[in-house]
Amino acid sequence: MKKERLFTPGPTMVPEEVLLEMAQPMRHHRTAWYREMAKEVHELLQYLFQTKSLCMTFTGSGTSAMEGAIVGCCPPGHKALVFRNGKFAERWAKVCASFGIDHTVVDVEWGHGIKAADVVKQMDADPKIDTVIVVHSETSTTALSDVEAIAKVTRDRKALLLVDGITAVGALPVKMDAWGVDVYVTGSQKAMMLPPGLGFAAVSDRAWERIDSGKMPTLYNDLKAYRKSHETFDAPYTPAVTLVRGTLVALRMVKERTLEAIWSETATLARGTRAAVEAIGLKVYPKDPVDSVTAMLVPDGVDEGKLRSTMRDKFGFHIAGGQGDLKGKIVRFSHMGYVDAFDTLGVIAALEMVLKGQGYDVKIGAGVAAAQAVFAENLA
Amino acid sequence: MKKERLFTPGPTMVPEEVLLEMAQPMRHHRTAWYREMAKEVHELLQYLFQTKSLCMTFTGSGTSAMEGAIVGCCPPGHKALVFRNGKFAERWAKVCASFGIDHTVVDVEWGHGIKAADVVKQMDADPKIDTVIVVHSETSTTALSDVEAIAKVTRDRKALLLVDGITAVGALPVKMDAWGVDVYVTGSQKAMMLPPGLGFAAVSDRAWERIDSGKMPTLYNDLKAYRKSHETFDAPYTPAVTLVRGTLVALRMVKERTLEAIWSETATLARGTRAAVEAIGLKVYPKDPVDSVTAMLVPDGVDEGKLRSTMRDKFGFHIAGGQGDLKGKIVRFSHMGYVDAFDTLGVIAALEMVLKGQGYDVKIGAGVAAAQAVFAENLA
Repeated sequence: MKKERLFTPGPTMVPEEVLLEMAQPMRHHRTAWYREMAKEVHELLQYLFQTKSLCMTFTGSGTSAMEGAIVGCCPPGHKALVFRNGKFAERWAKVCASFGIDHTVVDVEWGHGIKAADVVKQMDADPKIDTVIVVHSETSTTALSDVEAIAKVTRDRKALLLVDGITAVGALPVKMDAWGVDVYVTGSQKAMMLPPGLGFAAVSDRAWERIDSGKMPTLYNDLKAYRKSHETFDAPYTPAVTLVRGTLVALRMVKERTLEAIWSETATLARGTRAAVEAIGLKVYPKDPVDSVTAMLVPDGVDEGKLRSTMRDKFGFHIAGGQGDLKGKIVRFSHMGYVDAFDTLGVIAALEMVLKGQGYDVKIGAGVAAAQAVFAENLA
Repeated sequence: MKKERLFTPGPTMVPEEVLLEMAQPMRHHRTAWYREMAKEVHELLQYLFQTKSLCMTFTGSGTSAMEGAIVGCCPPGHKALVFRNGKFAERWAKVCASFGIDHTVVDVEWGHGIKAADVVKQMDADPKIDTVIVVHSETSTTALSDVEAIAKVTRDRKALLLVDGITAVGALPVKMDAWGVDVYVTGSQKAMMLPPGLGFAAVSDRAWERIDSGKMPTLYNDLKAYRKSHETFDAPYTPAVTLVRGTLVALRMVKERTLEAIWSETATLARGTRAAVEAIGLKVYPKDPVDSVTAMLVPDGVDEGKLRSTMRDKFGFHIAGGQGDLKGKIVRFSHMGYVDAFDTLGVIAALEMVLKGQGYDVKIGAGVAAAQAVFAENLA
């Protein structure tokens, strides 16, 4: 028997309950049935983002929702600050450039998170900046930014804070209202235990004020159109009905388990994995590691491509490689969504076995024992 | 037993083979498995659009693909002509307005299709027009435009022709290359027998030349990004993997049945339905009826809302009402995708029974007999 387990940081594994819900006979969206479902999904999204703000469901990837947020919040007369510390941050800089948004890009070493002091420094130097864009969990480098502290300084300075929470929301503590974040965005295929195809944006009243103050070239990802349709729990364009059905089931599971329990378990899985990496004699890559994904440096003498393909073809464990400059240098393990401590012990065991197979000097069981010690302390 | 049957013009019914394919365990998209699937989907899309051009799969509704097409093909220095003969045509005029595209909107009476002469008249009057946007099958009014003849005149005048084929492609004869259409767009939830969530655009070399000649504010729906990723059968942003899996299965079914057989059967279902409407003593709404959807005028004394809700709640037949000015005045029946003559006899029988229940003078069986006569002649 070879079981397949996804440890890629999106798509992640989807529970059978969700898969089978989405396989139910097709239904139409201009119905009371759909509107009732959309209403409950909205309440559950507010729980997920920890907000009283409107939460919009985009038919598209997380990028569609993030484009909608950036374009809506940066009409002419405003200036954005983008911290580029990875591949996804780079994408948001591209959105600004493509739409002719006045913006400054600050390069931050990959593997580092963004701190409040970085924001203060830039805003003090350029008082025109009134919009800050950061990635909470930079999936490409697995670096964590300090959103809570950043929100404090953007609030003090009356700037809007837009956060890419694509591998953060539902995995890491995210408290949109308590922290004062203006727009939080996520995608379905990460901590939400869903296939890809939906993007979500929670939009504060402060952000709506900005959005309503200007006009930008946008239709498909136009937040205003989503808000208008939301009044009747409708969608501006045909929504991905099956994925929305799945969202209802998945978010009910999240609510029942509680976010606090999920945040805590995700952190434990990450701590256990980092302990395992060190016990094997390897290194965690980022300077500021996030708890939703762990990146490990591939040691000299080990072929990264062969490591991943052997783990996949021989043992059914799907892990991710690096992107951009990190290609061939790191491998990444997800801790998001429908994954538990025992799946995680499995992927560590397989890692050890495949490393040994490639001639790397590893004491079989060292990583597993280190991870299990963390799990025993936190989960038992 | 009450069986549910969708006769709404999107979403339409989805075969169980497709639903269960999409319920398979989640898989990752940055894999040889996905690229092989994307390659076959691309070949099948070329068959569907009858083209050798590149066919792009958007994670979004048909609107996302249509926005991508319009924005890409109308950079500064070009002028678009939009014929507004229904709700969807109106949306494409809004895209032009939102993105600041130089364009002229020509209002055409609802229920009428666009003819080549309409295009000639406008282009002769304004030589700056070099891009024509028409809706092949205007779902809101069920009117058919003469795309083949229009393509002839746009080719003669070296203008680009962009066609919304959302309720046309896979239902009506569509021959992109033979006709000389530059961009054809469709969505998953119509004739393709899939849930909503994917848009498709087939883009000719002439269109690519235009797209490459300019720069427009776009990222998520940027055709250039899709083309670049397509080189490796990849996607620029995380694709809706489960829906793409469904597309492979659904399009294999289409290919096996052949487009010619599907076009012919769709036309037969429409002819039978129109014959039934007349035999019941009612009227087909549009001046230029399309074969993918039939709209019928609701007679005086019959409550449109109650007609639809009774058909749905009592007999499980889901039909659509009118949109915009047509709200309350028409009901619409789809002939697209996973629907056959016997489903169609059923919806006509239910219509007769519900009309009679509302006191409308109908000879039970008259419509069914008229439709069956058409089916017997064409399908037996």
